[in-house]
Amino acid sequence: MAVITLTTDLGLHDYYVGALKGAILSQMPEVAIVDISHTVPAFDIRHGAYVLRQAYPNFPKETVHILGINAETKSNQSHLAIYCDGHYFVGTDNGIFSLLFDKVPDKIYDLSNIRQDTDLLIFPVKDVFVKAACHLARGGTPEVLGVQQDGFRKVDTVNPVFSENILHGTVIYIDSYGNSVINITKQFFNDSVKGKKFTIEFSGEEITEISQRYNESAGGNILALFNSAGYLEIAQAQDSVARLYNLTVGSSVTIRIAE
Amino acid sequence: MAVITLTTDLGLHDYYVGALKGAILSQMPEVAIVDISHTVPAFDIRHGAYVLRQAYPNFPKETVHILGINAETKSNQSHLAIYCDGHYFVGTDNGIFSLLFDKVPDKIYDLSNIRQDTDLLIFPVKDVFVKAACHLARGGTPEVLGVQQDGFRKVDTVNPVFSENILHGTVIYIDSYGNSVINITKQFFNDSVKGKKFTIEFSGEEITEISQRYNESAGGNILALFNSAGYLEIAQAQDSVARLYNLTVGSSVTIRIAE
Amino acid sequence: MAVITLTTDLGLHDYYVGALKGAILSQMPEVAIVDISHTVPAFDIRHGAYVLRQAYPNFPKETVHILGINAETKSNQSHLAIYCDGHYFVGTDNGIFSLLFDKVPDKIYDLSNIRQDTDLLIFPVKDVFVKAACHLARGGTPEVLGVQQDGFRKVDTVNPVFSENILHGTVIYIDSYGNSVINITKQFFNDSVKGKKFTIEFSGEEITEISQRYNESAGGNILALFNSAGYLEIAQAQDSVARLYNLTVGSSVTIRIAE
Repeated sequence: MAVITLTTDLGLHDYYVGALKGAILSQMPEVAIVDISHTVPAFDIRHGAYVLRQAYPNFPKETVHILGINAETKSNQSHLAIYCDGHYFVGTDNGIFSLLFDKVPDKIYDLSNIRQDTDLLIFPVKDVFVKAACHLARGGTPEVLGVQQDGFRKVDTVNPVFSENILHGTVIYIDSYGNSVINITKQFFNDSVKGKKFTIEFSGEEITEISQRYNESAGGNILALFNSAGYLEIAQAQDSVARLYNLTVGSSVTIRIAE
Repeated sequence: MAVITLTTDLGLHDYYVGALKGAILSQMPEVAIVDISHTVPAFDIRHGAYVLRQAYPNFPKETVHILGINAETKSNQSHLAIYCDGHYFVGTDNGIFSLLFDKVPDKIYDLSNIRQDTDLLIFPVKDVFVKAACHLARGGTPEVLGVQQDGFRKVDTVNPVFSENILHGTVIYIDSYGNSVINITKQFFNDSVKGKKFTIEFSGEEITEISQRYNESAGGNILALFNSAGYLEIAQAQDSVARLYNLTVGSSVTIRIAE
Repeated sequence: MAVITLTTDLGLHDYYVGALKGAILSQMPEVAIVDISHTVPAFDIRHGAYVLRQAYPNFPKETVHILGINAETKSNQSHLAIYCDGHYFVGTDNGIFSLLFDKVPDKIYDLSNIRQDTDLLIFPVKDVFVKAACHLARGGTPEVLGVQQDGFRKVDTVNPVFSENILHGTVIYIDSYGNSVINITKQFFNDSVKGKKFTIEFSGEEITEISQRYNESAGGNILALFNSAGYLEIAQAQDSVARLYNLTVGSSVTIRIAE
């Protein structure tokens, strides 16, 4: 059965998600609709991109992922369908795609042919994205949806900085356990640290080892590990490290590497 | 595949929704169960009716919609199955149906034949509604569920008042973005305003235009538009107009129409 | 269609649940995935066990239930697949199974053969439980998953005490309506009270009757009934008895039985 996933900031309180699912089932009765999250903070494309970026590789190839965050087009933003890594993505060119992919995908089409069919601008996730997603989920090609595009809008991201044996990282995401994700991948960490001794510093605390799991802390209770998404993460066994040490998105985390 | 939707105040925290879904799958293994919302405020039939009213027309015809809000019967309230507009609705005659439909539907049956099978009164959504819904989703007729009824219980609604070039409206719903829905439909607005100039007034603010989308405000940041449900709505681009201007369900919104 | 249910503390905010569902659909395209709850309080195996214990009997036989609460193994805890009461359960041997079943089930296997396939310890619900669950949902036998076990880890539970015509009970669960569940089953109540007069006492209040439904209180507004799970429950029609009378998990409820 074809799969369509939903990642939105529409919430669970209103009729929006129900209307979406009804529209999908009306156009495509045999499809598995999977909620990835509807509680992305309103308009927060960074949160939404992080969630879908980690979730989508687990789905079967040819899955269609609808991104309904800040979906209204503005004068310089169009609706896009993208084929990347064997998956389809339907969303708005508001910068979210630059947070989702590390490269520019081969196939990017706007939805101008879909949009011609409708003058409903109020709820494009339902009135535009669902039509494009069902077309793709039925095996249709993105080429008929609209005009091919060269790329997508980019938004700034905070990259880690490595200089004079210090890695300057930033908290980019805090999950519902309070685990705090740093913008440092396992590969970047290894390429910088090169097996030397190191100290991870934040809020006056220090961690000197990488743990393999959440309930295995070296010494105290705070620990650092590479999470299932491959990012460095600060955690505390069975508690919220973010709450205990006042970490928020944007907090600095410094890694000092021995000479 | 047949579709059964769920609109309830059962929450996402307890076993109630899981038990419902298990009961449905035990009676009908091949069915698409769609959550419309389980976070309707406890016992709030107005919220629940608004949500389902806007969501259900998006679903395929013959979909069965379970309404599990304030579902226990009282002495003067029975459980009902209703066929209206090509859809089935199963719920309690507590007034919610009068908020869902503008007319009295042709087919209204109580569930007395279903209820005879059970003496479980504690959880009628699971023990009574699921049985009726699965019967209908399998293509069964409502006639066998119980006794035909003439109508359903009505609850008062706040209607807009038009007098001396002033339209008196009321906020009836606030969504999770803080957008505030007024009890004035596009048709009622147009029939009253008749193309003349107008001023929408609330909390000391004024809006003099209808926008076509949420991120297109004329002048300031607050805007008015007709939402995807066809109601007048006050919104603010990327913020909560309800929080900023202290709007709650019941707040007054006045529209002055030029002579 | 085979059914896999999910009861976790993973929340609805992050990518974890989406990743789980993607992993299931990648291994088993035709399966009904049912969310029982993802908002179990973090690490709270008692809450999770109560929820699944009441929900699972409603599902078809041979349903596979994944329990993703405090799922990481420790040195003395393994991952288990259990067959009990016609259902399969996959989770961690952290005591949760002793809260789920009243007896030791016949079939208990660890997942050592599954775990050999992976060195991913960070997210065992996705990397270990999903593989075991899909195997079972496809009709595979638990015997091939790992080594047979004699039993599972037990955690202390608060049992009601009956002495000198007084039943000492404890609040074990508060649902999202504020209804407060006591650790006294209908059978234990009946065996203790033996049809005599009784007074249920808590927070200075008294109840002297068992109601049949939530909106039928004898006299005042507070009432006691046996809930759909078979436990004694204190409730208040259309309000939260927990909030009004300061009941929390662990609060005492005393039942005095007439001589």
